[in-house]
Amino acid sequence: MRDHSVRAIPRTQSSIALSTDGERWLLCNASPDLHRQIDAAPALQPRGPVRGSPIAGVLLVDGQIDHTAGLLLMRESAAPIEVWSTDAVREDLSGGLPLLPVLDHYSGARWYRLPLGEPLHIPPLPGAELIALPVPGKPGPYSPHRAHPRDGDNIALVVRDERSGARLLYAPGLAMPTAPVLAAMKDCACVLVDGSFWSDDEMIRAGVSRKTAREIGHLPLSGPGGMLETLGSLPAATRRILIHVNNTNPILDEDSAERAMLAAAGIEVAYDGMEIAV
Amino acid sequence: MRDHSVRAIPRTQSSIALSTDGERWLLCNASPDLHRQIDAAPALQPRGPVRGSPIAGVLLVDGQIDHTAGLLLMRESAAPIEVWSTDAVREDLSGGLPLLPVLDHYSGARWYRLPLGEPLHIPPLPGAELIALPVPGKPGPYSPHRAHPRDGDNIALVVRDERSGARLLYAPGLAMPTAPVLAAMKDCACVLVDGSFWSDDEMIRAGVSRKTAREIGHLPLSGPGGMLETLGSLPAATRRILIHVNNTNPILDEDSAERAMLAAAGIEVAYDGMEIAV
Repeated sequence: MRDHSVRAIPRTQSSIALSTDGERWLLCNASPDLHRQIDAAPALQPRGPVRGSPIAGVLLVDGQIDHTAGLLLMRESAAPIEVWSTDAVREDLSGGLPLLPVLDHYSGARWYRLPLGEPLHIPPLPGAELIALPVPGKPGPYSPHRAHPRDGDNIALVVRDERSGARLLYAPGLAMPTAPVLAAMKDCACVLVDGSFWSDDEMIRAGVSRKTAREIGHLPLSGPGGMLETLGSLPAATRRILIHVNNTNPILDEDSAERAMLAAAGIEVAYDGMEIAV
Repeated sequence: MRDHSVRAIPRTQSSIALSTDGERWLLCNASPDLHRQIDAAPALQPRGPVRGSPIAGVLLVDGQIDHTAGLLLMRESAAPIEVWSTDAVREDLSGGLPLLPVLDHYSGARWYRLPLGEPLHIPPLPGAELIALPVPGKPGPYSPHRAHPRDGDNIALVVRDERSGARLLYAPGLAMPTAPVLAAMKDCACVLVDGSFWSDDEMIRAGVSRKTAREIGHLPLSGPGGMLETLGSLPAATRRILIHVNNTNPILDEDSAERAMLAAAGIEVAYDGMEIAV
């Protein structure tokens, strides 16, 4: 967004960090913009010159480069990086884009299975229950499975705080909210969902791609069955936040009609350094 | 450098961009910090919402992650990325760290051979002659050749402006300046050389590594045969600039005794956005 006639905040690639104790953080997706994101988030910064990072693990919702290349930036970690992903994502990150074997030549990586649809407890998030729900989509273009997607290529992550019972859902790529994903969204205090594109043909009209939003795994915000309609079906108290916003999306212009429609619908747009408590 | 008692400018990974016409730029090394570097360099920024980048090509001096992972950030380029490297680096970037085949699933990459010791003219730098000089060192840790280095794993790049005759040398990793490299340095108006470490055991003393500077391919600045001594042997008019400065290096502290020694020797320390005309 270098057009200064537009009032828009530059944003880096979609990642979030979760913590239940404010000490240890689970990074959800390792963006190539990781350094800029850490700059914007004091809680993620190392606390001493040699002490380790507060990032206690990384959970990947898919194997896309924008969600995984940041692992390379963590290769000088003091200890092996703890990584949670589905089997499908592990396979892609061991083959077509072999970040996990590459890390083995540096700090190392310890991989843990993220099962589909089963509650999981992991050390970086004590007191929280995680559930990964499969989301229809495709693996990264580099994947040998690109033409034959598997369950687990993409997931939505549900995190439940066991003290408060409050749930949060994170789904930066959500081409089609399935019945289980929709049901999970309705149970959440806060949803962080795919806000990539306003309209399905947005990138074609902008001349930057020949593909529609749906073809690359993103439900457009507007139109029948779009994300706004989906979010409109949630209970009134649900906090709705759009993430993974593409730079062609008119909602980045804070003075746009589209942004005004979001505001009227009570939908927020995430920004670097945003903090959310549930 | 998060210790605010030290007066130091944060720096991203070593890359430079060269241009003979101010329009087209050759990026020398594609750092994972590429986005921040482009932010700091208006000449490298796209000139319209859809127009291509002024970056007309990428030349790699080695296959290290800090010099190559930025290729992944260029994968949405409008045209295939033009990449120059030695055969050794191409092999590593096609195998252990297969960035070139990964790019083929996005914008694509067109690879061109960077021969050793032979003058070369390339389209991104009209009116300039390039020579790649082999530099002793090792390929990246991920390389199957790590234990058996090859000529071309690392190079120093000499660029000669054919109008002015002025030469520039770029060598971010220079464990041992060979006779040909030293001779080339003496012919240059400006040298941009390895300023990674002040002392050979700097990272060991800082507790961040068990390896010496020389073991990982960097000549320390201080001590007998060090980079300061080497730079001291150059003609008085040579502009001497240190690049690739590690965050353990005391010269980053602008108030340090080590920095004062550099100033007394007429040696500069590069910074993001620095512009050099030769």
